[in-house]
Amino acid sequence: MSWPKSGGFWWARDDLGFVDGRLNLAGHDVARLAEAVDGPLFLYSQARLLTNMARVRDGLAQTGRPFRLYYAMKANRFEPLLRALACSGLCGVDICSPNELDRALACGFAAADISFTGTGVSNRDLERLLAHPDLNINCDGIGMIRRVGERAPGRDIGVRVNPALGVGYGDNARLIYAGQHVTKFGIYREQWSEALATAQANGLTIRTLHFHVGCGYLDGQLADWEAAVAAGLAFLDDLPDVTTVNLGGGLGLPHQPGDLPLDMARWAATLKRRLGSRNVTLAVEPGDYIVKDAGLLVLSVTNVEMKRDVVFASVDGGFNLAPEPAFYDLPCEPVACVPRDLAPAAWRPVTIAGNINEALDIWAAGQPMPPLVEGDRIALLNAGGYAAAMSSDHCMRGAFSERLLEA
Amino acid sequence: MSWPKSGGFWWARDDLGFVDGRLNLAGHDVARLAEAVDGPLFLYSQARLLTNMARVRDGLAQTGRPFRLYYAMKANRFEPLLRALACSGLCGVDICSPNELDRALACGFAAADISFTGTGVSNRDLERLLAHPDLNINCDGIGMIRRVGERAPGRDIGVRVNPALGVGYGDNARLIYAGQHVTKFGIYREQWSEALATAQANGLTIRTLHFHVGCGYLDGQLADWEAAVAAGLAFLDDLPDVTTVNLGGGLGLPHQPGDLPLDMARWAATLKRRLGSRNVTLAVEPGDYIVKDAGLLVLSVTNVEMKRDVVFASVDGGFNLAPEPAFYDLPCEPVACVPRDLAPAAWRPVTIAGNINEALDIWAAGQPMPPLVEGDRIALLNAGGYAAAMSSDHCMRGAFSERLLEA
Repeated sequence: MSWPKSGGFWWARDDLGFVDGRLNLAGHDVARLAEAVDGPLFLYSQARLLTNMARVRDGLAQTGRPFRLYYAMKANRFEPLLRALACSGLCGVDICSPNELDRALACGFAAADISFTGTGVSNRDLERLLAHPDLNINCDGIGMIRRVGERAPGRDIGVRVNPALGVGYGDNARLIYAGQHVTKFGIYREQWSEALATAQANGLTIRTLHFHVGCGYLDGQLADWEAAVAAGLAFLDDLPDVTTVNLGGGLGLPHQPGDLPLDMARWAATLKRRLGSRNVTLAVEPGDYIVKDAGLLVLSVTNVEMKRDVVFASVDGGFNLAPEPAFYDLPCEPVACVPRDLAPAAWRPVTIAGNINEALDIWAAGQPMPPLVEGDRIALLNAGGYAAAMSSDHCMRGAFSERLLEA
Repeated sequence: MSWPKSGGFWWARDDLGFVDGRLNLAGHDVARLAEAVDGPLFLYSQARLLTNMARVRDGLAQTGRPFRLYYAMKANRFEPLLRALACSGLCGVDICSPNELDRALACGFAAADISFTGTGVSNRDLERLLAHPDLNINCDGIGMIRRVGERAPGRDIGVRVNPALGVGYGDNARLIYAGQHVTKFGIYREQWSEALATAQANGLTIRTLHFHVGCGYLDGQLADWEAAVAAGLAFLDDLPDVTTVNLGGGLGLPHQPGDLPLDMARWAATLKRRLGSRNVTLAVEPGDYIVKDAGLLVLSVTNVEMKRDVVFASVDGGFNLAPEPAFYDLPCEPVACVPRDLAPAAWRPVTIAGNINEALDIWAAGQPMPPLVEGDRIALLNAGGYAAAMSSDHCMRGAFSERLLEA
């Protein structure tokens, strides 16, 4: 729990903060909600989802181009959350598997508002996808173009390209993927003419150009992003039938004190500059950007004790519920839901440990925390994306509750 | 797929190898079994489980002490596998959560043959555990000793100690945990007298001393293991009522060419030397050692194509089914189930990629493989432990089948 600065806590905002010494999310008392359920609880603020969505829409509007927003449901597929987004009418949904398609349809999205961009797509996957003529399908490689063509000749498709490391891009060193090995995603420049020929041979019309060139980028990475976008847009020269450019996801958000939010006006200006005179519909697929900071994981303190010279607070949920801190080095800052003392002088460094029998199952090491006792609730911030969606039943400790909070 | 040496493939053994050019496990044709199901398939060799178990039992027998073997079910909780182990009568089971307790009981293990060693144990957990008077419960800290005592005064317990970094162990630099930060597991020397006082104050009798001092150790780490065991056994001096020393798990197994199996005779001799004249029952809790190399994950090739200068073979399952290669750098060597050509001259480096939209979802990069085409099956070795048990439904691609193969 970071120290409060003069302006309060770095993460506090309209729908998240202390009210009379109790953490509130979307007007609800977090600890009280947690007391009503057994075990770990994910809470999601609907107001925050919509605010985040509005921010992306504003940015896109500033480009002066028509646009589509597809929420990337791999970040969080909780059905009430998907239904709320479908009802809002503000976005379609980005999916990456046939099961996600079924869930999106069940939650109220029309096939025409769904965009599929998958990898390693099997023929069985394709049969389920192609059953929906209005579904937007982006092909991740030449084999997929061919196999779509064999099953649905004449169909409109999208193609995902990989602008990184391409021949002719001398400024690769500045691209986000620079220095990394070749990834499995998209079509590289080296295979581009074969991809175009495969689409043509099957009578497929390429309506969407898709590329996804970074992940979690903030202002500091915008220059890299711009170079990658330029490299991606260059593929348009060979695509006379394209109506839409899908920029993928990757918009970043603050994780810790000192991170500044992505400047969407600057993002939009960058994009507009790179688009030049190209008149295309823009699509983006934010996932984390929409849901991550809308969600908390609320856990109970089960034990507090010293081990050697470290104070450990154990909680009733582990990294299997939200793997990013353990596996991706993305922190989930712990916040006491009802701090016993908000004066920093009373705070002590505490290591917050999950209940899984693995050494890496530590939520936060040496975090300054107000005094904690058994039964206290701790909220982990930024647990709205890639948390429940990636959870496992490791050690058979995978049970949790989820709740979408309307404002 | 590593090159075959003069003696054949490094991983081949009685129940695993090629028969007439087709990979067989426990007398079954792997590709044929995979053709009978949709999607990813885990196969487990019952014969191999029992062979691995017998090897640990032989080692323990060489110490001249009575012993107990507890299979650590967190590695693999597939019910038919648990039932087979329960029926074998060769082992009890090690658990770390109340849900694991329920499953162990349901699969035929008696409470007296179950040993619980958990972390972050909640009061709700304790209520479920303490309902079984014969269950062996090891306490991971002072708070847990106190809370057990409050609920079940007079009960026999075990205590888990953490011999690493303890005061008075000058040779810590050689311990396996050396140089690492303080872990959440067990009771450190610094809190030892308080732990003993807490047990005594609640009338609890300490019958088991538990420590777990390493993970995946092979012969090269035996010296470190020995030092840690010595440090652990030193706690016995304060425990007149102890009848059992539980050494935890951690026995390693080969993962790649060049790894030699742990020498169990040397392991036993090491242990015997350290035990000296102490006459205690020994307990061990192997998980991976029993199941890891008994299991394969069989996937289908969905696509083969060049991306830039790399040949990618996509398969119909990703890291969410078996997270160790992506997250723990533990390889799962890919083997073609029906190799189209076993002459190494025909092999080419191939990157085997899963079907999850994350860059890290690569099973193996640049592995020499025989020619592959769509529909071919690939078996990933060493997928018996911490694979299905840690799997998630990330991208809603978490479905798989499992089968225990009797010999």
